[in-house]
Amino acid sequence: MLTSEVDPPVVQEADRDRETIDFRGRDLLGMEELTPEEICTILDTAVSFKEVSEREIKKVPTLRGKTIINLFFEASTRTRTSFEIAGKRLSADVINISASTSSLSKGESLRDTVENLAAMRADALVIRHHAAGVPHMLARFSPVPVINAGDGAHEHPTQALLDLYTIREKLGSLQGRQVLIVGDIASSRVARSNMLAMHKLGMPVCVCAPRTMLPLGIEQLHVDYTSDFDAAIADADVVMMLRIQRERHGEVLFPSLQEYAERYCLTLERLRRAKSEVLVMHPGPINRGVEIAPEVTDRLESVILQQVTNGVAVRMAILYLILGGS
Amino acid sequence: MLTSEVDPPVVQEADRDRETIDFRGRDLLGMEELTPEEICTILDTAVSFKEVSEREIKKVPTLRGKTIINLFFEASTRTRTSFEIAGKRLSADVINISASTSSLSKGESLRDTVENLAAMRADALVIRHHAAGVPHMLARFSPVPVINAGDGAHEHPTQALLDLYTIREKLGSLQGRQVLIVGDIASSRVARSNMLAMHKLGMPVCVCAPRTMLPLGIEQLHVDYTSDFDAAIADADVVMMLRIQRERHGEVLFPSLQEYAERYCLTLERLRRAKSEVLVMHPGPINRGVEIAPEVTDRLESVILQQVTNGVAVRMAILYLILGGS
Amino acid sequence: MLTSEVDPPVVQEADRDRETIDFRGRDLLGMEELTPEEICTILDTAVSFKEVSEREIKKVPTLRGKTIINLFFEASTRTRTSFEIAGKRLSADVINISASTSSLSKGESLRDTVENLAAMRADALVIRHHAAGVPHMLARFSPVPVINAGDGAHEHPTQALLDLYTIREKLGSLQGRQVLIVGDIASSRVARSNMLAMHKLGMPVCVCAPRTMLPLGIEQLHVDYTSDFDAAIADADVVMMLRIQRERHGEVLFPSLQEYAERYCLTLERLRRAKSEVLVMHPGPINRGVEIAPEVTDRLESVILQQVTNGVAVRMAILYLILGGS
Repeated sequence: MLTSEVDPPVVQEADRDRETIDFRGRDLLGMEELTPEEICTILDTAVSFKEVSEREIKKVPTLRGKTIINLFFEASTRTRTSFEIAGKRLSADVINISASTSSLSKGESLRDTVENLAAMRADALVIRHHAAGVPHMLARFSPVPVINAGDGAHEHPTQALLDLYTIREKLGSLQGRQVLIVGDIASSRVARSNMLAMHKLGMPVCVCAPRTMLPLGIEQLHVDYTSDFDAAIADADVVMMLRIQRERHGEVLFPSLQEYAERYCLTLERLRRAKSEVLVMHPGPINRGVEIAPEVTDRLESVILQQVTNGVAVRMAILYLILGGS
Repeated sequence: MLTSEVDPPVVQEADRDRETIDFRGRDLLGMEELTPEEICTILDTAVSFKEVSEREIKKVPTLRGKTIINLFFEASTRTRTSFEIAGKRLSADVINISASTSSLSKGESLRDTVENLAAMRADALVIRHHAAGVPHMLARFSPVPVINAGDGAHEHPTQALLDLYTIREKLGSLQGRQVLIVGDIASSRVARSNMLAMHKLGMPVCVCAPRTMLPLGIEQLHVDYTSDFDAAIADADVVMMLRIQRERHGEVLFPSLQEYAERYCLTLERLRRAKSEVLVMHPGPINRGVEIAPEVTDRLESVILQQVTNGVAVRMAILYLILGGS
Repeated sequence: MLTSEVDPPVVQEADRDRETIDFRGRDLLGMEELTPEEICTILDTAVSFKEVSEREIKKVPTLRGKTIINLFFEASTRTRTSFEIAGKRLSADVINISASTSSLSKGESLRDTVENLAAMRADALVIRHHAAGVPHMLARFSPVPVINAGDGAHEHPTQALLDLYTIREKLGSLQGRQVLIVGDIASSRVARSNMLAMHKLGMPVCVCAPRTMLPLGIEQLHVDYTSDFDAAIADADVVMMLRIQRERHGEVLFPSLQEYAERYCLTLERLRRAKSEVLVMHPGPINRGVEIAPEVTDRLESVILQQVTNGVAVRMAILYLILGGS
């Protein structure tokens, strides 16, 4: 089931020519826009930045005198905080703007907001919006780089990058690793960004969910599909559990949480069917007892928290590459 | 019509003695309180700070170890962000307090809030409030300088200063330049601060609006009045379009937006009647198609965004002069 | 009445051995957990940090490269701002998270939030929560130190420490000083933290309030009780007036504010019965005319504002001791 019918692109890790990759001044909108070489450059760069957060003095002067603006039109603790910490550890000035306090209540258009922030000589805009495509649209007008921190159910590229970083860190490589993504695929920008990236990196992906939770056009995402979690888990190198985003869909996609959990919750029993070295991931926050059984959560917590730690490193790398690197 | 009947004060630019001007420790409450010499000192100081924001490393150590507090009782993106960026580029610590998160919900008086922030050894309070006169009232109790970031329909001095900076930058001088201000004069603290300043600087001002949008006591503001935009635009060196502040007036001041736009919107046709080198300004955010026609917006956007850029420079100059300069 | 029946512990100031006191990596949850020696160490350390805020350049590099997170689940201006200023004057990076913008709306548990922030390599979490015990519970899960910035009606240790600092600064010593606490004792975490600390430090405490405003189990707090403010004030070295927290109790604890004020408001007449050198304190914000008469407020304002000034110094000391000191 996990043997992908699609033909994943082959990445010659030795071949890739990093000399030509230059992120300076560019946007980071989605995994869709990145080449395998670019993805690897970001991950490689993150390695050295991860070390900064483990120091006694967690600060480097790399982006001193740069202005980074977090423009968040959707509530967020962890992503906003992760970007803010990443920026500050690089010595940048970080400004937070949240929708509730913004002058959008005055009828200012998103485009005006972005052009104004650029006119104040911001060096990068980190944008989260509840509607898909907003960062892409704004990037067209913005003279400064736009970094997508999550747009609707579309993309969340920095989350996919930190997931890839964690897989590579834990398993040693990416190419050929089989990934099983379980849960609310259609609502998940995390799943979408990962599926796009993993296809590029030659990682076969299988999704497992009720049919009501699959996106339209899933065929084009080069993934396999199954509804049999118990069977699919056996072949996976990575199991990525998604959060049931109860706040996101007004409609009912499954009869009850209990019934969902019965078929799609990662229980200890299911975990026993997996390879012994299987890597279980979750983008957080977890609904304990819904998508992951509490006893599994506690056992796997360290990996989930390593994802969070790696998120700061990956975001430092991105800010460095776009604002200052060469 | 633009030939002002009032007698504007004459500024001898060569004569003015800057030696005696010292802003240290003073409040900046409104254009009403400033002399022409003081206004020019701020504008001159801003010139050197504008350059800082164009550097690779946009940061100077001038206000290191100073604490600036943005105390905003009214939503704002651009003014708050502009002050925050200005403070941080001067290396000050900037603290944001917005009304919704403040302990005013505990019944603390404004005066207590200000005295408390002063007791924490803040070096300046940047205050915006929806009621006219609040920064002035608080300045009486505050042992630290108060900077008015906009109070009701009263004053918005840093906006007037950035407007004057932009006019001087674009036209080379201020004295004698004829200014036409169009729109919701009565609701506009931007218009009021500009009218007060321009009279002091010898700049004849004509306002153009429906009579319902004129403030009481406009006679004392030393401006001419017309309702004929088409005629008045011909003589203007500067046309300042105001935003229709729909969120500000509950009452109906004009029959409909369409009818307002017909008479007071800056269209391409109207712009053709103006001098070829006319400077069109807007404090932002623009209601496209209401006060400025979309095709004009796009043509004039660069000036409007230069106002925003100059806003950071002017606020850096003010913070520098009040907190550290001599 | 103020002669305490309880036997306060005796502190041999000369005896105490500071060598063994090491706060590094520890939580600060409440006065209940601190020894007299630890309290004195914090107060002594604060003395040197108070001086920093009086300098021209109010900044020391002590905590450069440290990340401090203010995690506030309850509105606050002064405590959040005081911690933010304290952290920034020590050169730490300070991140603010308020409940309204947090991903708690996504159903994330408090524990997850804390573990995530720790995974981002935060160095300390400053937590305020409207429910008693939350910081204590979170400290059990948190790998990084938790500092309690106020939990329900339970504890507010940094407020008690700044109160003690102010008493020691004004009166020269703590042991044996008689303290009268007046007002809404049951709702006041400030009162509770002070009562716990003062007992440890050998300071006899008498509380004065309507019986409806006394907490259950007050017997265990080693304090005397009186409802006769006029009599009790004569013996006090310190009178600590509490704020009537109208927003906190839905039930009616007294017939009317007028009646409350008549018996428990600190008037000029009552103040005349006190020792001439009596120290009147208030944690702020004051309800003028309720717990303190306006004419007394104005006379005593300087002490109340010195408490605020000392709050920054005490919080700098705590952050220093926990994050960097030895």
